[in-house]
Amino acid sequence: MHTSDDERPLVRHDDDGVATLTMSRPRQFNALSEEMLDALNGELARLTADESVRCVVIAAEGRAFCAGHDLKQMHAKADKAYYQTLFARCGEVMQQIVALPVPVIARVQGLATAAGCQLVASCDLAVAARSARFAVSGINVGLFCSTPAVALSRNVGRKRALEMLFTGEFIDAEQALDWGLVNRVADDDQLDQALGVLTASLCAKSGAAVRAGKAMFQRQLQMPLDEAYAFAGDAMACNMMAEDVAEGIEAFLEKRDPNWRHR
Amino acid sequence: MHTSDDERPLVRHDDDGVATLTMSRPRQFNALSEEMLDALNGELARLTADESVRCVVIAAEGRAFCAGHDLKQMHAKADKAYYQTLFARCGEVMQQIVALPVPVIARVQGLATAAGCQLVASCDLAVAARSARFAVSGINVGLFCSTPAVALSRNVGRKRALEMLFTGEFIDAEQALDWGLVNRVADDDQLDQALGVLTASLCAKSGAAVRAGKAMFQRQLQMPLDEAYAFAGDAMACNMMAEDVAEGIEAFLEKRDPNWRHR
Amino acid sequence: MHTSDDERPLVRHDDDGVATLTMSRPRQFNALSEEMLDALNGELARLTADESVRCVVIAAEGRAFCAGHDLKQMHAKADKAYYQTLFARCGEVMQQIVALPVPVIARVQGLATAAGCQLVASCDLAVAARSARFAVSGINVGLFCSTPAVALSRNVGRKRALEMLFTGEFIDAEQALDWGLVNRVADDDQLDQALGVLTASLCAKSGAAVRAGKAMFQRQLQMPLDEAYAFAGDAMACNMMAEDVAEGIEAFLEKRDPNWRHR
Repeated sequence: MHTSDDERPLVRHDDDGVATLTMSRPRQFNALSEEMLDALNGELARLTADESVRCVVIAAEGRAFCAGHDLKQMHAKADKAYYQTLFARCGEVMQQIVALPVPVIARVQGLATAAGCQLVASCDLAVAARSARFAVSGINVGLFCSTPAVALSRNVGRKRALEMLFTGEFIDAEQALDWGLVNRVADDDQLDQALGVLTASLCAKSGAAVRAGKAMFQRQLQMPLDEAYAFAGDAMACNMMAEDVAEGIEAFLEKRDPNWRHR
Repeated sequence: MHTSDDERPLVRHDDDGVATLTMSRPRQFNALSEEMLDALNGELARLTADESVRCVVIAAEGRAFCAGHDLKQMHAKADKAYYQTLFARCGEVMQQIVALPVPVIARVQGLATAAGCQLVASCDLAVAARSARFAVSGINVGLFCSTPAVALSRNVGRKRALEMLFTGEFIDAEQALDWGLVNRVADDDQLDQALGVLTASLCAKSGAAVRAGKAMFQRQLQMPLDEAYAFAGDAMACNMMAEDVAEGIEAFLEKRDPNWRHR
Repeated sequence: MHTSDDERPLVRHDDDGVATLTMSRPRQFNALSEEMLDALNGELARLTADESVRCVVIAAEGRAFCAGHDLKQMHAKADKAYYQTLFARCGEVMQQIVALPVPVIARVQGLATAAGCQLVASCDLAVAARSARFAVSGINVGLFCSTPAVALSRNVGRKRALEMLFTGEFIDAEQALDWGLVNRVADDDQLDQALGVLTASLCAKSGAAVRAGKAMFQRQLQMPLDEAYAFAGDAMACNMMAEDVAEGIEAFLEKRDPNWRHR
């Protein structure tokens, strides 16, 4: 799949339930320009309604995963209302990822900086190439990474988040793994294989259970313990009534693979 | 102490302030059947009112710590109200552990899966054998581990929790230690020794301070910073008025061991 | 700089935007006596209004960073109202650190125990000597570290916090680094060098961006995701209107160092 910067900023490719969105502006380090944000917003909206999709991968072409906002485009404006709209749109895209019914996995190669790092933090899971590097580096141009901080501080401890935000310095893939910002690190030439292991695992599950589970997980995180248990207990009782659970438990008791109805 | 599956599902054994509840259904991998949940609920209620107890250990017989809910028993029903009651009862037991006035320690050998992993996450502390393994594996039978997710996501970072919940895969004891799901890992034949070091440390403390502290800790976790400080400051002022503190500080200043009144 | 215990409990030293507050009661292990708390409160209030300061370091003289409250002073009273006032004053100092407009870094050598460990946890960043050790050891004198627990449990996972609080045992600097309680560990004779690298990095940034960012970070931590994004997006749009950002982005596009107006 060869896409040049003259073509669509975001390319969707589907393969047996795995929808991959590839940011395809390698010469701009896949910056989250207005066009890229609109493309992500549109594709994520379509994916939300797409029952055939089992999981989503956010990937990128070139030497950078994503370098954050398009500084050149932003610099051309000097209008607070424009910036408010821009950051609101970006925040909406990040929350679309969290709200998407199926798991979203970041496939990270090269640099993930500022809103690019936020994109990784906003995904449910992340697989990184060993050479990947992460920073919230807006502070280097005088712009504290405020919206990236929202996602980052919900992935890593607060002293670690503050160090990254105040210094703008990079952490490498091993550090990101140790801190919980990514789930797996693979040698660069093994990145797609590592990603494939993860997507294959997700696709082998009951889609109904995965969808119910993701929505439940994100909501309960923001509840006090008693409310979270009441909510989760009801969600799990509903899940028990699904055909897939009867099949899954029967398969388990009969020591065979389940045949999911709700892929 | 030999208990067979024909006897009580849960055995309580007291030793000098340490109450050990041993799940004793090894042939069912100590599944949290209705009977096991009722037994835990009853014992935890009794322990709540027992002033002689300094700490509680939740242990298990056999090759598994706890394999979660009893799938066979659940599969025999197809009644949403039944499941709601079952999960509410399970959530109640987990919250009893959090609310118990004294520290609760999980002693984990073998498998801790689904609600068994939740049990570990719900305890204040956990000591694991090196061969122990942890998973929230309901997703493998089409049942997302929603209630386990509540406890798990309050122990480990969200990407790690989601990876376990979506893949159903095991992590080993070292991984659990690195992620903060358990406090200590010991060679299998040293597990009770490691546990003993921890319970001895707890039993050497003022019981009044431990009890006041646990309740305070759990509540302040759910408060914003200013409220948490106001609440903790008052709790600590109350704690200062206890006889044990005067004795503790005197012993400290006189470089001798304290004689606690409120063991 | 030599200060004896007969002089001021807290010495402020300014060096090119870095304000260092040095606790100077080494013979009392820099205990947070009434006098020390008052001195911290006063200096932090002055720093809050001081536009020339780029970051604050909290340091200490002697073999201990800070041993927590002054047990001798506390023991001389037996008045709940006194303790309430004392802990409220201490909580106020800790919250002043969080609310201070610029980053606060703990420079930790030797022991940091009880409210001394809380002081480390309350700072935005922390650099520790390899020989530094950390404990919330009030439990050893019958006084559960309730207010330290507030800060500690917002730095490290709950099982780790509870282990420290219930056992009163020390963790070393490497453990503190692994758990996220400190950001960097340096050999004892390299501590000031490691600290200098961090303060130099902070001082090279736009002061306006750092100040806006710190306030934003602390507030969004306590919000649900949608509110946090709305708040952070507005903060970032305001930040974009600052002169420094125009200069920062121009410098970036021109591949030169920025000249910040708002140091």
